[in-house]
Amino acid sequence: MSYFVGIDIGGTNIEIGILNKDGKIFSRKSIKTESKNGARKTFERIFDKIKESLNDLNLTLDDIERIGLGIPGPVVNNSTVKIAANFSWGNDFNAKELLELISGKEVRVINDVKGIALGESIFGAGRGYKNSVTIAIGTGIAAGIITDGQIIEGFNGAAGEFGHIIIEEDGYQCGCGLTGCLETHCSANGLVREGKKRLNRVEKKEENRLYQKINGDLDRLEAKDIFDLAKEGDKFSKDIVDTFCKYLAKGIGILLNLLNPELIIFSGGVSKAGDIIVDGIKKYLPKYALSISLEGLNFKFSELKEDAGVLGALAVAIK
Amino acid sequence: MSYFVGIDIGGTNIEIGILNKDGKIFSRKSIKTESKNGARKTFERIFDKIKESLNDLNLTLDDIERIGLGIPGPVVNNSTVKIAANFSWGNDFNAKELLELISGKEVRVINDVKGIALGESIFGAGRGYKNSVTIAIGTGIAAGIITDGQIIEGFNGAAGEFGHIIIEEDGYQCGCGLTGCLETHCSANGLVREGKKRLNRVEKKEENRLYQKINGDLDRLEAKDIFDLAKEGDKFSKDIVDTFCKYLAKGIGILLNLLNPELIIFSGGVSKAGDIIVDGIKKYLPKYALSISLEGLNFKFSELKEDAGVLGALAVAIK
Repeated sequence: MSYFVGIDIGGTNIEIGILNKDGKIFSRKSIKTESKNGARKTFERIFDKIKESLNDLNLTLDDIERIGLGIPGPVVNNSTVKIAANFSWGNDFNAKELLELISGKEVRVINDVKGIALGESIFGAGRGYKNSVTIAIGTGIAAGIITDGQIIEGFNGAAGEFGHIIIEEDGYQCGCGLTGCLETHCSANGLVREGKKRLNRVEKKEENRLYQKINGDLDRLEAKDIFDLAKEGDKFSKDIVDTFCKYLAKGIGILLNLLNPELIIFSGGVSKAGDIIVDGIKKYLPKYALSISLEGLNFKFSELKEDAGVLGALAVAIK
Repeated sequence: MSYFVGIDIGGTNIEIGILNKDGKIFSRKSIKTESKNGARKTFERIFDKIKESLNDLNLTLDDIERIGLGIPGPVVNNSTVKIAANFSWGNDFNAKELLELISGKEVRVINDVKGIALGESIFGAGRGYKNSVTIAIGTGIAAGIITDGQIIEGFNGAAGEFGHIIIEEDGYQCGCGLTGCLETHCSANGLVREGKKRLNRVEKKEENRLYQKINGDLDRLEAKDIFDLAKEGDKFSKDIVDTFCKYLAKGIGILLNLLNPELIIFSGGVSKAGDIIVDGIKKYLPKYALSISLEGLNFKFSELKEDAGVLGALAVAIK
């Protein structure tokens, strides 16, 4: 029987799984990323953990058919990270080559969000759908676009930069350098900024439930606070979520008119807010999407949850 | 040797070509569409013309391997036109089935703009590029998206509705029912509307060159008038084209951030204005597109020109 390794490199942690091609996870371990020690050191520590995991399972490297690696940033040819946006490992960093050198195994690399989208399409909420878009909403927002079962990588690996489509002329400045990006509204950071802005305008702050929830400390405000109060029916927080959903509907409307997928999957931390997001989006979508793009459209939430990273890496390994 | 038939059904004319798989055109004939006589009558007239063309070439139906058909509207499974937007032939009109019944030949159907995009990618400006988007600008605007050599059809055949992405909250009402669509600005109709609006505001109309060009008859204003004067350096018309390019850059910026193609091909009547469009877009793109999406990006114009329709239909026939 043959096994695969699925690795998900995040900013803080690296998840390492030993799996079979059907997505069954035999082992999952986590190490700190500590990327500042360099790519080689980091990859060697990953490889040590792989060997440790195999040992625990009474397996050897010979049992491993291929390694899949999910990593932030634009990836081309399932090998090279074009731009060092997340780790200071240099531009055109050939992650495939380095991990193959260290492990002696064939490696395939994929952008983390694209991996998650592929993982959902094979093992999760996207099973049975040929055209789906997975939208990961966390600190920022990004998408993995699947058409006819294939992930769209883009010429420089930069397809799916859904967070940086311009939806508001003269809007907020975004960290990417552009102005009015979807991400400035439709991310945890965007929601928190909007919450703070509105709280600052409230006259009798002590009577405001959101203000009470964070004990008047605006620095403590999190997206979850706003979603939780909105779900409890608090009008102030409901209005913030409504604005969030309106912008998100505008972005998704564009996505639908361009790609006409049959399924949108929400993933990432913010998606845990659940139906309140989908309900809000559905309210505004007819304003932004052609009726033919809405016909037969489904919304789902990630089914892979905390395993999304390693299963996404597996997805590119078995393709 | 085997031949193919490429048919392009337009609102006014139908083009019918006899071609080989390499895109060599042996015969091209045109008939009036006259769609009001019904699909069956129209298709029978097409088939008569095919037989006439074959006869002229001393060929028979046995020499035809397959028929490709380009048609307006959303097409699914290379067979069915989902919505009767252009001809009153009913929803879910199975064009493949009808033409196969009449001709006895295998037929593949594709949306006309998607066909043109596929045709450009195989025979024209897109040769050698795996990821391209062909933007057809005429009365309206639409796109054909090619990723990894495949056209994106969409669940209901409605991918590529680039003209209906919302780029202006509270903009003009569009014929599609939405408000603020790209098409309300970036089409021949949009440009003419903008021209008329600005001409109406001019005080000394007699001194305005655009006004002079159309002899003061605003109903005569065409997109070409505006482009021609802009190219001659007339400031009034240059400003109108600049606004057109700014909106188009906003739309293309979204396209680039979502799909990261390596090539944009301009097709359709308005694209004949040429470099003035590309120059205008390039000026504004850095405001709307991530720098990684612009890296290595090429702009070209249709190379298939008046043969785009039949070669587009051929493209789906040989795939």
